[in-house]
Order: sequence, then structure tokens, then C-alpha cells
Amino acid sequence: MNTHVWLIGAGPGDPELITLKAVRLLSQADVVLVDDLVNPAILDHCPQARIIRVGKRGGCRSTPQAFIQRLLLRYAKQGRRVVRLKGGDPGIFGRGGEEAAWLARHGVGCEIVCGITAGLAAASEFGIPLTLRGAARGVTLLTAHTEDGSQPNWPALVQSGTTLVLYMGVATIEQTRQRLLDGGLPAETPVAMVEAASLPTQRARVSNVGHMDQDARDFALRSPAVLIIGEVAAWCRAEDLPARSAAC
Amino acid sequence: MNTHVWLIGAGPGDPELITLKAVRLLSQADVVLVDDLVNPAILDHCPQARIIRVGKRGGCRSTPQAFIQRLLLRYAKQGRRVVRLKGGDPGIFGRGGEEAAWLARHGVGCEIVCGITAGLAAASEFGIPLTLRGAARGVTLLTAHTEDGSQPNWPALVQSGTTLVLYMGVATIEQTRQRLLDGGLPAETPVAMVEAASLPTQRARVSNVGHMDQDARDFALRSPAVLIIGEVAAWCRAEDLPARSAAC
Repeated sequence: MNTHVWLIGAGPGDPELITLKAVRLLSQADVVLVDDLVNPAILDHCPQARIIRVGKRGGCRSTPQAFIQRLLLRYAKQGRRVVRLKGGDPGIFGRGGEEAAWLARHGVGCEIVCGITAGLAAASEFGIPLTLRGAARGVTLLTAHTEDGSQPNWPALVQSGTTLVLYMGVATIEQTRQRLLDGGLPAETPVAMVEAASLPTQRARVSNVGHMDQDARDFALRSPAVLIIGEVAAWCRAEDLPARSAAC
Repeated sequence: MNTHVWLIGAGPGDPELITLKAVRLLSQADVVLVDDLVNPAILDHCPQARIIRVGKRGGCRSTPQAFIQRLLLRYAKQGRRVVRLKGGDPGIFGRGGEEAAWLARHGVGCEIVCGITAGLAAASEFGIPLTLRGAARGVTLLTAHTEDGSQPNWPALVQSGTTLVLYMGVATIEQTRQRLLDGGLPAETPVAMVEAASLPTQRARVSNVGHMDQDARDFALRSPAVLIIGEVAAWCRAEDLPARSAAC
């Protein structure tokens, strides 16, 4: 099975938060299929390539997944060097696994190049250590958005003792608040709400579980955003970054 | 509070898995304090800087943390551009939070630049999607190693429905196996053991919870390694990478 497709993480938004490996592979690509959460500045690394935008934002219908996969397959079978460029890390809520599995079933191998996922960037940008001795012995990345509407096991997540980093959680923040409280998380547990992590427009506010929905409304929190839930969220130094965020 | 210290993630080992931002900041540094898990090739980006090696491997005594912090402070107060370069991501098991907090208490600000953490690199290198609809709605990064010997809440982690990625877990793999079984995880749950992720010497083996300790011995699994535990670990395509790993 030949590898003709590189599934590459473009990072969280800041065009400098991409890896050297991704830059090299982009510069060698014939065709690049790119998600619309990817910063267009990153495409400066592949002026030679044919660019195909295949945006898929949560909740919106745009390019169907099956069509994206058929495009990848067609170009790969033509012997082109095909890059599939995704926001963040392809293996974290990126459906990278589904695309790779489908390609494998059709005889095309796929190499995955990891990227900086938004939750880790959000933490770094605002000085939050996701793990911290005595406060958080691990970190859990999870999503509030599922197509079937099912919920994660909130009581278990609360009991896990890990920092929780919730992706795609703005629209359902009221329900999340209630489920965290029902799951046993104290209302005063800090929550850092980070919007547009690593972009010039990034901003953050510290709240707590009890007030997170109200504070998100007051702050006009919009997607893309992550919620960092746990003791370490109190480290969020939103106020230290006036140049990047007038709101903090 | 002036920012003179950049706490930078060097990534998992492959010198190409560092960000453009890290490369730029390294090229502008006066002093670089570097952990010994960082690939020396990365220091090619800062030939102008004074390099100070301050290795700290788990279990071994080397440069004491207090001494590292005093060095950071001294150079920062001299007005030098100081980079603290750590393996992986500074906010994930890197004690980056402790160093940043100590510096802040002494009047020195610290900017954190995230990096690719080993668990995410291990997954990408071997084709494992850490999240997958229907199989893993999130991923938890955690460590088996703590100074006080305390254990995470294994039953809660098992119940969380997330892929578990265990760092620094080789020495205690027998105990981990038992705790996962006691926590209710089925013995046949797949486990991917990945050693030296992203380096030319990387290798992996797929096992399961019931046999993970025996298989780790047969495979002569050594640190640094991560254990990826969950349904998605079955995707590990160790055998697809003969050029990188004679053992698979």
C-alpha cells in the first residue's frame, strides 16, 4: 500500500504554531485539501499546490465528508502528493481516523502528522498548566458536540481528578454547567473560557462552574472556544495580555 | 512585570516536530536552559545562545529544580532573553506551571509556547485516532509517576469513556494492569505500547490490558514510552513501518 496522502495538523490558528514537518510536506504537495478553520496564511507554504477548500463547520452543511474522501482517493490514485490539512491535531476531534480508515479500505495509505490542538494552545497562551502536582494529575480533552446528542459520563469525568478541556462547548454551556454540578463538581471550581486561542483576536475570561453560562453570555463568548475546567483554570492570566485582548 | 523568559515545548523528539514559533524564539535567545529529553538537534536553531543543560530524568537526581529556577531568574534579571526548553509541551507533565509560578513570585513574567506532547505524537506516528465517534469521545493524558506514590482514580478513568494515554508508565505496568482490571476495564481492551515516539528508534506493539505487563517484558519496552489504552489502540499499525522499527 503506497502512502500518497498526508493527514496534517495545521495547529490552533497562529500560523507560527505549525510544525517544521508540516511546512516541509506542504512545500512538496501537489494538492492540498483544507478545512475552513485553518488559517489561510498557512497556505503560503504551498504556493505550488492546487488548493481545494473543503470546509466543514460544526452544525453547518458544507462539503460532505464522502465527497472529501472521494477527492482524496482520486488524487492519490493519480499519484499526486496529497495533503489533507486540518485545524489542530488530526487525531483529536478531527475525524482523521475516519478518513484514514476509508482510504485504507480503498488501498491508499495515509501518514498522520500531529499538530497543536486548540485546548493545549488555549492553556499555553493564558499561562494555564493543564497538569499540576497536587491539583491536576492529568488532562481530559472532550467534546460537548455529538451527532447523536449522547452525553459523556459526567460523574466519572468529575471524579477522574483531571483538568477537563471542553471543545465545541459554547452552544450547550447551560446544559454542561448543570451536568457538571449534578456530577458533583463544586460550583466554585474555576473555568477559563478561551475564544479564538492563539489568534490576534483571542480573549479569555475566568469564571466558575456555577456562573459559567451567565459569564459566557456577559462575555459574548463565541466559537471557536474551549472551556478549561478545574483548579488550574484559576491561573488564567487574561488580564496580563491587554495588547491581544481588549476584553480582558 | 517584564517577560524575559520563554517556556518552550520542544516536542516529542523528532526535530521536525517543533513549531515555527519555537524556532524563531530560539534563534533570538541569549541563554537556553534545556532538559535532557530534548533532541540536541533542536539546538541547531540557536547557535548564538549560551546553552545550559539541566537534565532531570524521572527517578534520577540531576540538576535540582530550585537551582534551575535560580538560574532562570538570574539571567532574566540581567535582561537576557532566556528560553527554558522542555520536551513535549511545557503544560503537560513538564512542571512548567511550577517554574512559571516561582518566576512570577520573583517579578519575572513567563510566556509559554506549546509543543507537541509525546502521547499525541505516539498516536499520530502509528495511525491511532485518539478520539473516534462511537469508540472514544475524548482522550485523557495522565501519568503513572507521582512523587508521593498516590494513585489516580482508576475506576473513574475507566468509566470516563475516554482513550487513556499513560506517560511514564513502564516501571509500574504490572500495577497499572491490575488497577485497570479492578477498575472494570475488560481484559481484552487494546493497549498500544509506543517507545521513543517520533524518533528513528521508535517502535510499538499492540497488546491488551490482560497481557500488557507480559507483552511489555517480551517486547523489552523501555522509557520513554507511552501506553495508549482503549478501543482505538487496535488501530496501531506498528507493522506498517518496517523502515522505522525492526521490532514490529
